[in-house]
Amino acid sequence: MKKIGVILSGCGFRDGSEIHEAVCALLAIDQAGAEAVCMAPDIELNEMNHCSMELTGAKRRVLVESARIARGKIRNISEVQAAELDALVLPGGFGAALNLCDFGQKGAAASVNPEVARLTQEIHAAGKPIGAICIAPALIAAILGKKAHPTLTIGTDPGTAAEVEKTGAKHQDCPVNEIVIDQANRIVSTPAYMLAERISEVYEGIGKCVKTVVEMA
Amino acid sequence: MKKIGVILSGCGFRDGSEIHEAVCALLAIDQAGAEAVCMAPDIELNEMNHCSMELTGAKRRVLVESARIARGKIRNISEVQAAELDALVLPGGFGAALNLCDFGQKGAAASVNPEVARLTQEIHAAGKPIGAICIAPALIAAILGKKAHPTLTIGTDPGTAAEVEKTGAKHQDCPVNEIVIDQANRIVSTPAYMLAERISEVYEGIGKCVKTVVEMA
Repeated sequence: MKKIGVILSGCGFRDGSEIHEAVCALLAIDQAGAEAVCMAPDIELNEMNHCSMELTGAKRRVLVESARIARGKIRNISEVQAAELDALVLPGGFGAALNLCDFGQKGAAASVNPEVARLTQEIHAAGKPIGAICIAPALIAAILGKKAHPTLTIGTDPGTAAEVEKTGAKHQDCPVNEIVIDQANRIVSTPAYMLAERISEVYEGIGKCVKTVVEMA
Repeated sequence: MKKIGVILSGCGFRDGSEIHEAVCALLAIDQAGAEAVCMAPDIELNEMNHCSMELTGAKRRVLVESARIARGKIRNISEVQAAELDALVLPGGFGAALNLCDFGQKGAAASVNPEVARLTQEIHAAGKPIGAICIAPALIAAILGKKAHPTLTIGTDPGTAAEVEKTGAKHQDCPVNEIVIDQANRIVSTPAYMLAERISEVYEGIGKCVKTVVEMA
């Protein structure tokens, strides 16, 4: 059974992984006959109240909150090696742009969590496919843009697309229910909630993205 | 468009709503062409660390945590009337048995959050359908068992089934990918993670449950 690493960044779209995207990715991995290996870095996040949409001033742990989505079956990313995995999938949510890197504040000048960068680079160097969802392609651009010039989508937002292109990546507009495939770099991306207005659109785009990644693996 | 109330109980299967079940229910509602109306009571929950599976001693708010699953679009259940809704769906997770009622501690002697009991009774009295997932049928039994004697499933666990029957409800064993329909009471139930070992099983059972509820509505 193919093992697909899933990098989570918390639990909730404003301070962690987008929950619908993460669950749709796990569902699509299972439906494709593969096994999800959930992981997250053991770092702090700034807690956001998802009713008021305000920062509370409190901190939570990315690994511990991500475990909610993974039903407790989660590993510290620092202990995961590329050799154990056949592919990598990254759901979106502000956590991907605020916890796994700081693209959300710094755009193309983002720095990336060292363990997320290491594993992504190892997977890419091994020729294993990567699926990037929603804003996660910006994280992939921050890691691989300068070196590999991957073609990616974050949907159609011109400002975000411009920042993605400043990393050396190439941005391609994409509708919510479709995917962009970079065959040379083996990177598949889909806009999900960068564009989606309904969860069924998220499921459709992520379904295609994950199915393609699992077939490539 | 039919409006389907979804009662959440937090965010994470050990102290709130089971996230996969809640997301699969929201997805199935959208795929059935209906609109989800997410709600939760504004009460405390006892925070569980989902890595160590230990209580932290800290409290969180059920409404605020549920908002993570609902992407901020959530209402206090005390402000929701049955007349606004065409049906009700209740995902599982320990939150359904610990926050919405205390079936998890007291079994058939459980007391139920007054607002959850009120809305469920109003929906049932109006002849509108109810979908109950995983352990949530035990909550429905605690509310309606003595009065309506509904036929329900929580899967196949004999101890839990016995407690459900002590309320006056009738328990029926059911495989993970199937549903139990009580036509007279218009209640549909499915085992989900009471039995499931894979998320695709959860999606299949909840998909059937929600589709039936939306058609009945």
